[in-house]
Parts: sequence; C-alpha cells; structure tokens
Amino acid sequence: MNWTVSEHSFESDRITTNGNKYMTGNGYMGFRGVLEEYGKEQLTAVTLAGIYDRSGDKWREPVNAPNGLYTVISCDGEVLSVLETEPLAHTQSLDLRTAVHRRETVFSTREGGRLTLTAERFVSMDQLHVLAAKWTVHSTVDCRVEIKTGMDSRVWDINGPHLLEQRIQSVSGALLSTAVTGELRLPVAVAELAEFGLAERVTDTGTDNNMDIRMGVNTDTDPELALRHLSFDVKAGETYEWTKYVAVFTGLDAEGNPGEAALSTVRSAAGEGYAGLLEAHRRKWEERWSRSDCVIEGDEEAQLALRYSIYQLLIIAPTMSEKVSIPARGLSGQVYKGAVFWDTEMFMLPFFLHSDPGIARNLMMYRIHTLDGARRKAAEYGYTGAFYAWESQDSGDDACTLFNVNDVFTGRPMRTYFRDKQIHISADVVHGIWEYIKFTGDNSILADGGAEVIWECARFYYSYAYYNPLKKRYELLDVTGPDEYHERVNNNAFTNALVQEALEIALRAAELLEDNYPAVYAELAESFAGGPFLAEFTEMLEQLYVPQPDPDSLLIEQFDRYFKLEEVTLAELKSRVIHSHEYWGGGNGLATTTRILKQADVVLMLNLFKGKFSREVKQANWEFYEPRTEHGSSLSACIYALAAADIGIPDWGYPYFMRTATVDLTGESKQYVGDLYIGGTHPAANGGAWMAAVLGFAGVQYDGGTVTLNPALPKAWKSVQVPVVLRGSSFRLEIGREAIVVTAAPGNSEAVAFAGFGGAPELCLPGMELRIVVFWEEDL
Amino acid sequence: MNWTVSEHSFESDRITTNGNKYMTGNGYMGFRGVLEEYGKEQLTAVTLAGIYDRSGDKWREPVNAPNGLYTVISCDGEVLSVLETEPLAHTQSLDLRTAVHRRETVFSTREGGRLTLTAERFVSMDQLHVLAAKWTVHSTVDCRVEIKTGMDSRVWDINGPHLLEQRIQSVSGALLSTAVTGELRLPVAVAELAEFGLAERVTDTGTDNNMDIRMGVNTDTDPELALRHLSFDVKAGETYEWTKYVAVFTGLDAEGNPGEAALSTVRSAAGEGYAGLLEAHRRKWEERWSRSDCVIEGDEEAQLALRYSIYQLLIIAPTMSEKVSIPARGLSGQVYKGAVFWDTEMFMLPFFLHSDPGIARNLMMYRIHTLDGARRKAAEYGYTGAFYAWESQDSGDDACTLFNVNDVFTGRPMRTYFRDKQIHISADVVHGIWEYIKFTGDNSILADGGAEVIWECARFYYSYAYYNPLKKRYELLDVTGPDEYHERVNNNAFTNALVQEALEIALRAAELLEDNYPAVYAELAESFAGGPFLAEFTEMLEQLYVPQPDPDSLLIEQFDRYFKLEEVTLAELKSRVIHSHEYWGGGNGLATTTRILKQADVVLMLNLFKGKFSREVKQANWEFYEPRTEHGSSLSACIYALAAADIGIPDWGYPYFMRTATVDLTGESKQYVGDLYIGGTHPAANGGAWMAAVLGFAGVQYDGGTVTLNPALPKAWKSVQVPVVLRGSSFRLEIGREAIVVTAAPGNSEAVAFAGFGGAPELCLPGMELRIVVFWEEDL
Repeated sequence: MNWTVSEHSFESDRITTNGNKYMTGNGYMGFRGVLEEYGKEQLTAVTLAGIYDRSGDKWREPVNAPNGLYTVISCDGEVLSVLETEPLAHTQSLDLRTAVHRRETVFSTREGGRLTLTAERFVSMDQLHVLAAKWTVHSTVDCRVEIKTGMDSRVWDINGPHLLEQRIQSVSGALLSTAVTGELRLPVAVAELAEFGLAERVTDTGTDNNMDIRMGVNTDTDPELALRHLSFDVKAGETYEWTKYVAVFTGLDAEGNPGEAALSTVRSAAGEGYAGLLEAHRRKWEERWSRSDCVIEGDEEAQLALRYSIYQLLIIAPTMSEKVSIPARGLSGQVYKGAVFWDTEMFMLPFFLHSDPGIARNLMMYRIHTLDGARRKAAEYGYTGAFYAWESQDSGDDACTLFNVNDVFTGRPMRTYFRDKQIHISADVVHGIWEYIKFTGDNSILADGGAEVIWECARFYYSYAYYNPLKKRYELLDVTGPDEYHERVNNNAFTNALVQEALEIALRAAELLEDNYPAVYAELAESFAGGPFLAEFTEMLEQLYVPQPDPDSLLIEQFDRYFKLEEVTLAELKSRVIHSHEYWGGGNGLATTTRILKQADVVLMLNLFKGKFSREVKQANWEFYEPRTEHGSSLSACIYALAAADIGIPDWGYPYFMRTATVDLTGESKQYVGDLYIGGTHPAANGGAWMAAVLGFAGVQYDGGTVTLNPALPKAWKSVQVPVVLRGSSFRLEIGREAIVVTAAPGNSEAVAFAGFGGAPELCLPGMELRIVVFWEEDL
Repeated sequence: MNWTVSEHSFESDRITTNGNKYMTGNGYMGFRGVLEEYGKEQLTAVTLAGIYDRSGDKWREPVNAPNGLYTVISCDGEVLSVLETEPLAHTQSLDLRTAVHRRETVFSTREGGRLTLTAERFVSMDQLHVLAAKWTVHSTVDCRVEIKTGMDSRVWDINGPHLLEQRIQSVSGALLSTAVTGELRLPVAVAELAEFGLAERVTDTGTDNNMDIRMGVNTDTDPELALRHLSFDVKAGETYEWTKYVAVFTGLDAEGNPGEAALSTVRSAAGEGYAGLLEAHRRKWEERWSRSDCVIEGDEEAQLALRYSIYQLLIIAPTMSEKVSIPARGLSGQVYKGAVFWDTEMFMLPFFLHSDPGIARNLMMYRIHTLDGARRKAAEYGYTGAFYAWESQDSGDDACTLFNVNDVFTGRPMRTYFRDKQIHISADVVHGIWEYIKFTGDNSILADGGAEVIWECARFYYSYAYYNPLKKRYELLDVTGPDEYHERVNNNAFTNALVQEALEIALRAAELLEDNYPAVYAELAESFAGGPFLAEFTEMLEQLYVPQPDPDSLLIEQFDRYFKLEEVTLAELKSRVIHSHEYWGGGNGLATTTRILKQADVVLMLNLFKGKFSREVKQANWEFYEPRTEHGSSLSACIYALAAADIGIPDWGYPYFMRTATVDLTGESKQYVGDLYIGGTHPAANGGAWMAAVLGFAGVQYDGGTVTLNPALPKAWKSVQVPVVLRGSSFRLEIGREAIVVTAAPGNSEAVAFAGFGGAPELCLPGMELRIVVFWEEDL
C-alpha cells in the first residue's frame, strides 16, 4: 500500500500533466507518462540526459529520441484510442516500488463487446539503454484486431528539429531509427524489436486466427514513422499478449556505432525476455529504495507524496555518468532547455548526500567538468575565475538568454537578469562540493578538480566585489538573489552569506588539499599564484559585508533598501494583475517595486546557516517574509516548511510541505511565465519535500562529525524512518516524538556520533542499535 | 527686420504651441502667448517663478496666477472671439526687440461690416510685478460693442488646485484677486485696473455713444471670474482704445500685504500710463539686447532663430532673486513641475556667463541656497554630502518621483531612475560654480557658500564611489548618464569625467578660498575635518576610472558594456514602435537593450572637455554616436552642432543648430512621453542655440585667461558679432572668416587676451580695437 499512483478515468485535459505525473526513467532517459497511442501532440517524449542541440538561432535544448513503443490498436476496422474513442473504463497507474507504468482501457467494440487493452512498460534501471513493454488484449466477443506498432520519429520538440538525416531501416526483423543532431552531429539511434507471442498462444488454442503480419517498412516514403501492421482474429474470452523491446544509444555513450549498439542491445534484451528484464529492473529498484525510502507513520497522504517525490528523484538521477547532472525539469521534456540550475545543489543534492553518495559525486563532478564553461562566462563579463552558468547544459556555457520572458502586453522579449546577475550560482556549486566532502569524507574530489572549482569561484567573487572605502567593507552589488522579482539589487543577504561561506571554504579547501594531496596542491597553488588567491580571499572574507538582523526587529533586510519598497499585500498585488500570464518581475513587473517576493530568500539563507541565528531571528523573519512571498517558484514552499520545523512549529510548515510534495501529483504549478510554457516535473520541489520531511520535521542534521536529531513532527506523524549513508556507513533512523532508534549496518566501516533531543552525542558503532529518549525535565 | 515673429492666420490646432511661441515674461512671471479671450482650456497661464504648491498627493508644481487681462468683445450681441467665430483676418506677432505681444483680428459683423480688434501687451522688464495692455476696436460700419473684461481666476493647473480661499474684490475701481496656496499658505494677489479712454475720444467727436458701464462685481456668486461689462456705440471709421494694468505679488516678494502691494502698484502703474510704462520697459530691453544680441551676417533665417532663442532666455532669467533659477520649461507653465534641472548649468548658464554675470550669479546662488535639500537627498539614500535634486524647486528637495512615466500599454506608473541615479547633477552644479568664477573672477561666491557646495558634492561622490580592488581604481556604478534610455549603467564616461572635474575643483576651490578668505576657509575646513575631505578627494581623483578613447577605433564607450548592446538603426527601432507615445527607456523600453541613445552623451563630454581630446577622437565619436542618437531630448541637437564646429566641419552641425534654434518657433518637439504632456518652451535648447552659434561656429572659448577664437562658420555666414562680458569688462567681437575685430569698451577695468585663428594671444586694453587676421601659409 501507498506505493501506487493511479487514476481511473480518462480526461483529455490531463494529458499534459499526466505526462509528468506518470513519468518513468532511469537517469539515462525519461519516458513521459503518455499512453502508447500518443504522438507528439500529446507531448510524447523520450528525453535523453546530457545531449543537447541547437536548431537555427532558437534555444538550445535536450534531444528527444524517437518513440519505439508507439502502438495503435484497431478492432474491426475501428481505431481504439482514447484520443478518438471515449473508453468505457480507463486506468493509468504507476507502481513506485518497481517503477512500472500500466494502463488498462476498456473500449466498446462494434459488435457490442468490450475489448480490454492493457499495456505496461518500464525504463530499465538495470540496463540503462533499454525500454520494455508488454500489451494484452482481451475481448468479450470475437473480433478482428489490428496492431500498428513501430517507431515514431515525429518527436515533440519545443525548439527543434534536432534529429537530422532521419532514417528508419528494417534490419532482420528489428526497426532501427538513426539520425544525427544538427549542431554537434551526434548520432542518435533507437532500435525496436516486437515479439508477437500471439502466434504461440493462438497455436495453443488450436485454431487458425488468420494472422497477417506485414513487416515491410517503407522508409523512403516516411522516414518519421515506420509501423508494422499485424492483424488477427480475437476469440471472445481469450487474452492475447505481445512484447516490445527498445534500445537507445547516442554518440555520447561510448565508442562504436550507436546503431549497431542499439540493434545488438535490443536483440539481447529480447533474448532475456520481458520477465527476466523486469526482474533485474525490480532488483535494482529494491536496492535504490532500501537506501532511500522514508516511512512516515500516521499520515498516509504525506507518505505517498513523499515516496512519490523520492521516486521522481530516483528516475532522473545520473547513475552512469559524472558528466550529467539533473535538469530543473528532470527528464520530463525540453522545458527550461533541459538545463541544470542551482536547484541541483541546493534542493536535490541533500537527498543524494544522505542516500547515494555516488550519485552526489556525479552531480558535483558535473560541475568540475563544466568549469571551463564557467571560466568562459566570467571572462565574457570581464571577471576572473568561474561564473557558473545559470542554465547549464553539456559544456557549462550558459544557455540562459538575456531575454527569458516575453512581455504579454507587447509580445516583445523582456530583458531579465537571470543570466548575468544571479551570481550566487558559483557559491551554490562551492557549497555543494563542500557538503559532499562533509558527508562522505571523500577529499579526493578536491584533487579531482574540486579545489580548482572552489578557488575559481572565490576568484570570481573577488573580482566581482567592490570595496566601499567609507564603510570599509566589501560589497556585492547589482545582483539578483533567489527572489527573482527583484533584479539588480545590492547586498542581497542570501548572496552575501553564500559568498562568505565560499570564501571560507576556499581557505579550508586549501588546507585540506595541502594536507592530503600536497603535490596536487603545490601544482595548483602555483597556477593560482598570480592571484587573487588565498591572501585576497582572506582579506575579502574579513571585510565582507553580510546583512545581519536588526537588533530591534530582528529582521534581516533582503537587500539594500528592500524595506523602502511599497508595502502591499499579496491579495492587493494580485488584484492589480491585468493579464493572467504577466510576469511579476523584470523592468516593469508588478512585484518589482513592492516588498512581494517570488520565493524564499532571507528564509532560505537562515535555513542554510541555521546554526548561526537564534530561533527568535528565524521566527521573526519567517513571520515577516512568509506573507510577502508569492511562492511563485516551486523552490519556495519547502523552505518555509523547513524553517518552520527548525523554529519548532512544524504545523506552520506542514501545508508548505504538502504543497511541495504534491506538486507533480496534482499538477498544480505555474504553467506559464509570459507566453513561455514552463510545465514539467519539479525535482527541486521533490528534493525539497524530502528535505522538509527529513531535515525539517525529522530534524536530521549532520555537520561532518555528529548527527543532531531534533525532531519536530507534524501533528499526525507518529514517527519517521529514514535510511542514511554517512561517511560510507549506513544507518537506519527511526525518529519518534519521544524516542529515536539508530541502527548501524553491521558492515559499516565507521562509527558516527548521534545526539538527539538536545542530548550529548553518542557513538553508534557498526551493527549497534542506539536508543535515544527525550530527556524530560521531570526526570531530574 | 528680423526682430519680429508673426503669423497671419488663425488655426486652432496651434493654440497650444503658440502659447509657448509668443510667450512674454520678465523672470518674475511668464505670460503665455494666448489671446485675450482665452481661458484655462487654451492653457492661459501667468506662471510665477519660484512659488510652488502641492495639491493632495499630486506632483508639486509652480503656481499660476489669475489672469487680469482676460477680455471678451461682442458686437451687436455676437461674441467676437477666435474660439467662436472664424475671423476674416488674424495676425499674432511678437516684437523681440521690445518684448511686446500684439494681435490684430478682423471679424465680420452682423451688419456686413468689418470690425478690427487689436491688442498689445507686455510684461514689464522695468517693473517686474506689472503687466500692461492696450486694445483698440475699429469698425467699417456703425455698431454697438460690448467689452467684458476683468479677472479670470479659473487658472490652468496640471496638478491643482493651488489657489485656495479665492476671493475677488472691487476696491475703488480696481479688481483685487486674493488667494493662498494650499501647502505653504503663501498669499497670491493680482490687482487689475482698466482705463476706458473711450469716453474722451468719443467726447472729441462730439457725439453721445450711449456708454453703459457696469463695474459692480459680485464676488460672492463667482469667486473665480469677475468681469466689468462695458457697452458703447461704435461709429464707422472711428478707432476706440482702452488700456489695462495688472500687478502681481506673492508672499515671497517682500514684507507687507501682497494685496495692498498689488493695489498700490497697479494704481501707480496706471498713473504712469501705458506709454510711460512701455518706454521704461523698452529701455530695459534695449540694455539687455545691447549685452546679448548676436548679429549673423548672411543668414536671415538663422539670425531670427538665434535672436528668438536669446529672447526666450531673457524673458525667464531671474534678475531679481538669487533664490530662483530657470525651470526646464521656463515660465511657460507647470510642465516638468516647474523644476530646475541640469539644463540650467549645462545649457543656459554659458549664455549668461558671457552676457550677464549678475544673472549667472543668481543662478548659482540658487544652488547654494538649496544645499540643504541636496544634503537631505544624499542622506535619504545613505550617502554623505550633497546629492542635488534632479528636479529642484524652492527648497532643493527633489520633486522627481520614482515613477516619472506611465506605461502606455498597461497604464501603470513605470519605475524610472531619473531621481536616484542621475548623479551627475551634483557635478553639473560644481561645474557651473567654477565656470562662474572663471568668467567673472568673483571668488566671493566661494565664501558665500560656493565652497561648501563644491565640497559637499565631492563628499557625495566619495561616498557614492566604489573601489575595484582588482583593477585598483574607483568606479561610479549604477548611474544614469545624459542618455536616459540607458539607466543604471556603470562608469558612464560623461559622469565619470564630470566627477573627475568636480574633485579637481574641490581641491582648487580649497586653495582659492584659503588664499582669499582664510578665515572662512579655516572655519569651513574644520567642519569638514571629519572627512571625507581633501585627502580622500585627492586619493579618489588619482585613482578614478574615466573611460578613454580606444587606441584603435578612437571611440569612447558610453558606459561599461555599451558596445555589447544590440546594433540597430534608428529607422529599424522606429519600425518596432507599437504605440506612438511609448517610452523608449525604462525597464522594457525599445532603446534600453540597444545602442540607440536618447541624446548626446559621450559627445557632450567631449565638448565640455574639448581641450583634452584630439580632433580625430572627437570626429570618430561624432561619426559613431550621431547616427545612433534619437535626439529625443531638446538638449541633444545643439551638442552635435557644437562638436561639429569644434572638429571644423560646421556644415555637419548647421542642421542641428537650426533644429535647436527653431524648436519653440516650429513647435516641433516631443509633446508626450507615455501619457505625460511635456510641451512648453525649451530654454536649454535656446541656450544651446546660443552656444552652437557663439561657442561653436564663432569659436569663442575663454579659459579664464585668454579668449581663443577659432571660428568655423557655416557656409552662408559671413560673420557673427557677439558682445561678451569677461571679468566685468565688455568686449564686442566681430568674427569673420578671415578677420576678427575685438573692441573693448572704453570703461573696461580689465584687459583680456585674445588669440584668433591659432595665433598668439594679444591683450586688448580698455577702449582698444584689436584686429586679428588669418595667418595664411602663403604669407610665409
């Protein structure tokens, strides 16, 4: 129970959101939650990780592969598709435990019967290039069924076409689609093999069902759609089943010919058979869940939403490559250019740090591999060091344009400052690398490029900063913080605090590298000797201005002169809206001149540095900023949930947690900014839901030495069980209101200290079960 | 000849522009070029200098006084007004030499005759509170004429009402309108006296013309309009004449009761009589012209336009007060809030410096008197020193709002950065004070507050500047330069160069003050001792970044990254316009993201510091920036004319000169920005026309020691005669292509050196005539 997401009717206006909700994937590719008869108009997409293309002067975006699972069924000459026929019954479901997508649809047939079509499929977590699917048909009356199935290369593109020189061949019974991308000329190959076990089944019943299979595919006349036609007589009460296998390869995947790799892989997959593939897939998922599933006792709704959030993270995490990270819309399509944002480090990384350090390392190595792109961006703007891309793709060059939103009133592109002013991105990367080291103790990442990234980011900030001679301090001017409705502000509290941390990390990384990898340190330090380097970092750190709480109000001003902006309620601001899609930020945006913020900004900073601020400060700022927050970004609600738990009022946070955890279940998120479609999945919110539950309500906090456990469970929650991996050792935490049980795996190599309910830390040795209880005052 | 502006038809669509074109005034008040029968709908206004009021939360703006000259004529019961009856003939004219406005209108009468109405009026340059007017009627047939004349207090206000507690009394034959302003409760009083000499004339002819005069004014029933009714029989062929006198006083004018002052002044004016008043007025104008009239030989059109430009400056110059300066729209109404901009220092002051140092001193003293307002503005933004108002009124507080323009697409106020980012205003003030000292040698202004202003401005810049530790230089970030289409830019070349000069002046002013007024210096220096003061100014000056010409292209980048903006032609940009009144600047303006500039910016800087740059640099920048300049401000064209003359290509500049010099003659200027009416006169353009002619084409340049004369006359110009006052001594310059004659007034106290055509300076002693001729190469 609580492992299944499903719905039991068909509604055409949910096609797009269901594409997100029922997504499957394995980090190599994402397969939107479409039905088999869907085409590009229904946003069918097999979105590939890490392969990008630019068509003409349009936005560069990820490449979608052809859909080898495309299938349309007819019965007695009538097409049975939810797009054309109202079904008698329809169920779409997703089994989160095994990541299998299913549909079952009942159509009425001409002869007054009911034909039931089922299909299930999975994107193999065991063989990352493989998709497998199985269909059945069953009819209450005799009828003749025709199957058209094959390769649909008419892919959905936002800014395509990306697949040029498309060709579909029939190779010894398999279909092979090949193409190359336009910009980098990377080959993309998809092979498909269908197995019509129908024949055997029919033979079993001893009747001749007039099977007619036409496999000839005329690739000359339609290079985009190649279909096998298969028709056969269906006998009432019998069930007919067939399977398909698809393999996807690109020029990024290895040496050799992707077409040949796809063909040989699809044949070998077919050889293993559907059941064998599924079992291997299931085992991989079992292992993933064993490391990540959080169990909430007492709140079924929250349980499903949290599990679903984790599922979404697992289907897009790059297990196979350190050159790929997670885009802001996961692998749910090309929205946001398939680009990687700060979302990864600040909202998703914590989950992987606690559950799968290998993936966490991949994510951070991606930043190391894209350092040159960040250097190019810094140089482009006249800075030294590394200014990471706001929207990062394969090379690390910034995919973000200067005109990200269209003005709905004039149709003109609107100059926004995402790309050039959200300088906190480099500090977010530094933060991520340091967190990785903290959780894993794996300093090798510093030698593998991490130190270089950290120092280049610090150099960037030194070159970006200005010194105020009168106030005798360094300032960070003309930036955009997390609240993107206020662009080009000075001394954004979040940004300055993050930069302060980045400078600290730069200095500490130098010590760590020198201690552990002296040769690497010596060589690198020499290349940085021209400066700015450690001396300048130290100087800037000592004099960097970071906005602090006002002694009276305890408020931290979001940026210089924020408090001078117009005070207006969110309701009042909404009443000023003229066009429902109008952008609230930018030069003339409704929120720009007011105190209304798009998303958590100061509160995000307080949560990141929760040890530095008193509960009173955190509460005062929560109470001030929350009513002024639009939550116009999916990155917002989870932070208010986290911060509410941190100040000990989890019930303030619970609605924000639920909003975060259900964003892709309900599909209730902002779909348009200006005239730009921004729908898709929300991995940052998924990560945020996990953070709110584990770091917030369960109160888990690891500082690299001790795990502090200060739970603040919402009313309905009895306990939360959380598996964590710290310094390579696995622990299971069972966190209740009055007792916490920590169980260390017997094979653990390290002991970790745990301190619960404000008590003293206790070491949890391998194989040990540690029980921590609330220390009630009356016990004294 | 060439002293008259006139037109010979009536066109209702020219009512507004003629209100500007035919304006009269004397620096105390402006009287728009309306006809006597016009009311507020025709923008009749008696705009008072230096008295401002705020009504409700609307923009603060100058106060218009009631119109004591309001008069409507009827003939045989039919109103004879151009607003109601198409006239048979109509002439409106302005005699520039004597500043007298005239109209002559011929109406057909019911009896088939022609009635000719004339009116002339002047705003006395001799008695600044007095207006006088004279009417005549003449008919070709006998008829009965009725005159309604009196006081129209229904004043035109943009953001009124400003005159509260209005009351009109009849006091012994005079009408007295009294009121108080709402905000400061300043009394405003206007007295009117009419003299109907008709009676005498009629008596002369020996007939009884049934005169019926009703003088009773019922002020209870209409406090806004008080009219005398006078009717009489007109005999064919006879001319009937009457006169009126008006006196205007406010609470700013002196002690005592403004109402009583107005009454006694109007009675005394009537006692002197129209002819006597006119003669005194004419003599004052003669004297003004003798000091300022420039004579162009060979170009009648340019001559009239230049003279007209000078006229416009003379009618608005504050001769009577050092607490008043010249608003950007002169005294032509309430447009731009009657506020004083940088226009005064940078575009008008040069004319007064050369022709009337007393007025120049008044203008600069105005800035000294408003220093506290500038200090308040600096403090408001967290700076030290003095940040002068972008739109300055009586107190020096900034009248400029943060939302200066409405978005035509949404109707919403648009955040603009005129107020908070055009920091060059303080340097403009410093520049003006220093120019005053250079021209007059009058250091006393430093002791009278000038030094304090200069230092406070320098302190402001020190507190505004940031130090770039990597580039080791001070920078001026987040400013708006003259080109207001590009707001919030870094290191605007114009701004940085002006600030550099301001810092230099701050240091030199310290020397000058210490040498000449050691006690004042000692006291002031002590008050500034806490710093930033001279040490900081020196440090900043030495390290201030001022953008320089690129060694290859010779171009100076207008601001950081200007060259990265979209390259687009002006024509292409215009083709993108959707709404004719849309604002090109601001957050989403059409020009904002392109290289198109509103007005001269780099070229203005090159012209201000012409000695610092080579001819090649100036030409390269002229050629680059001119095609990219919209000339969307009336401050632009004159600068391109000046710079063209400076590089020796006057014919490039001539069209810009003519455009500048005729702006108020043709009325062809931008009338709307967003939905904001910005029409009115253009004193900065008027001053710019004078600058282009004298400093540009005539090539007059005074550095405080020597006058350099490098004429570059446009094709048609044979010579230019220019009177100048330097260091209190008067000279007449006759500048031709091959010879220059300098004539020093016999009463001069000082000799000044003149160097023409690149030759060596020669001293011109009192009473001397100096002849300088071109030194041709073949003479060698």
